[in-house]
Amino acid sequence: MDVKVIAFDADDTLFINEPYFEETERKFCGMMSDYHSYQTLSQELLRTQVDNLPLYGYGIKGYILSMIETAIKVSDGTIGSKGIQKITELGKELIQKPIELLDGVEETLEALHGKYKLVVATKGDLKDQQRKLHDSGLGPYFHHIEVMADKQELNYEKLLQRLEIQPEEFFMIGNSLKSDVLPVLNIGGYAVHVPFHTTWAHEKIDHEIVHPKFKSVSKITDVLPLLI
Amino acid sequence: MDVKVIAFDADDTLFINEPYFEETERKFCGMMSDYHSYQTLSQELLRTQVDNLPLYGYGIKGYILSMIETAIKVSDGTIGSKGIQKITELGKELIQKPIELLDGVEETLEALHGKYKLVVATKGDLKDQQRKLHDSGLGPYFHHIEVMADKQELNYEKLLQRLEIQPEEFFMIGNSLKSDVLPVLNIGGYAVHVPFHTTWAHEKIDHEIVHPKFKSVSKITDVLPLLI
Repeated sequence: MDVKVIAFDADDTLFINEPYFEETERKFCGMMSDYHSYQTLSQELLRTQVDNLPLYGYGIKGYILSMIETAIKVSDGTIGSKGIQKITELGKELIQKPIELLDGVEETLEALHGKYKLVVATKGDLKDQQRKLHDSGLGPYFHHIEVMADKQELNYEKLLQRLEIQPEEFFMIGNSLKSDVLPVLNIGGYAVHVPFHTTWAHEKIDHEIVHPKFKSVSKITDVLPLLI
Repeated sequence: MDVKVIAFDADDTLFINEPYFEETERKFCGMMSDYHSYQTLSQELLRTQVDNLPLYGYGIKGYILSMIETAIKVSDGTIGSKGIQKITELGKELIQKPIELLDGVEETLEALHGKYKLVVATKGDLKDQQRKLHDSGLGPYFHHIEVMADKQELNYEKLLQRLEIQPEEFFMIGNSLKSDVLPVLNIGGYAVHVPFHTTWAHEKIDHEIVHPKFKSVSKITDVLPLLI
């Protein structure tokens, strides 16, 4: 292998993320339970989020705006200012969640640091991702953080152009087959999947991947024998 | 000069931005005019925006959330769902404003392209800035776009680290003395100020700058004699 840059996804690869969104969604559905069932609310919120992706992109601020839009819609406009304010408070709470590192992350970074250029490649709000990386204490292991508007092939191609490397010099590690694995394989890079116990509905894919540049491992430290 | 990278601010340097925010603010104050004067509303919105910067950062989504928060506050919670919905619509309208290039921009980029590495260095929402650059048609002139969480000295230091260059190899062009000029000079880079006719209150500074690596020009094409 001629790998020069190893890129790590952040959310649910380096530290916990999706469980915090799920917790916020439970609170949102709880406060809206007079209007609809949990399932209907959850589906409506997901639909609004996905509809808004082209305008808002990924990240917490778009999520807050989608919760507000959903609340107005499902309550048929009867939700009052108090309800909307409660949603913005849920949002601010979500932004400030503590960082909880996942098992083996620090050990993995420690072992790879100095041997490769390590970067974080993540989507979401720039501000949030930079804050989370800072608070995680993992900053010193990384050359820099790349916040991507999306993780499709074109976004990875632009990333490689910015990094001034060839696809076969790029190695991606992440928990999302859809975002961290498939597009990277498609443009000629290496990808390792480290599953997390829960995945956002929009990130799910339903087929298996077999590819010479792909491997699925059960824990992040399992990438070390592939790289050292 | 040993300049390798020329960075351009985007909003109100490459294309129009602040007038669109001002137009949105006028509409916001108009719809809230039953509650307070334009001046009070405008001040309250600015205060909320600045208070929310540490959490939301720059960009339109944070601006929409701050308008919602301001509306609830100044109406003492009496603004209804209709009002909030109207604000989210103003926000979505703002996100989709057309791109209007400023005079001389294309001529300047055309002349510098191929002679230096050109990048865009901007704050705001990643998604919005990438869309605006794409829609502007200026993408091909630039090596890449750097969206920064803020434009303070530390952010520029990280930028230079990412670009793997020294401060004296960095040349910044922008319309904000506070964000595009002062921090760049402070870390040892070159900066040129191209004033725009209107500046966001939060970006204003009230002193003159005299520095060997600084120049203020009246139009963007005036940077060319400094660089070619």
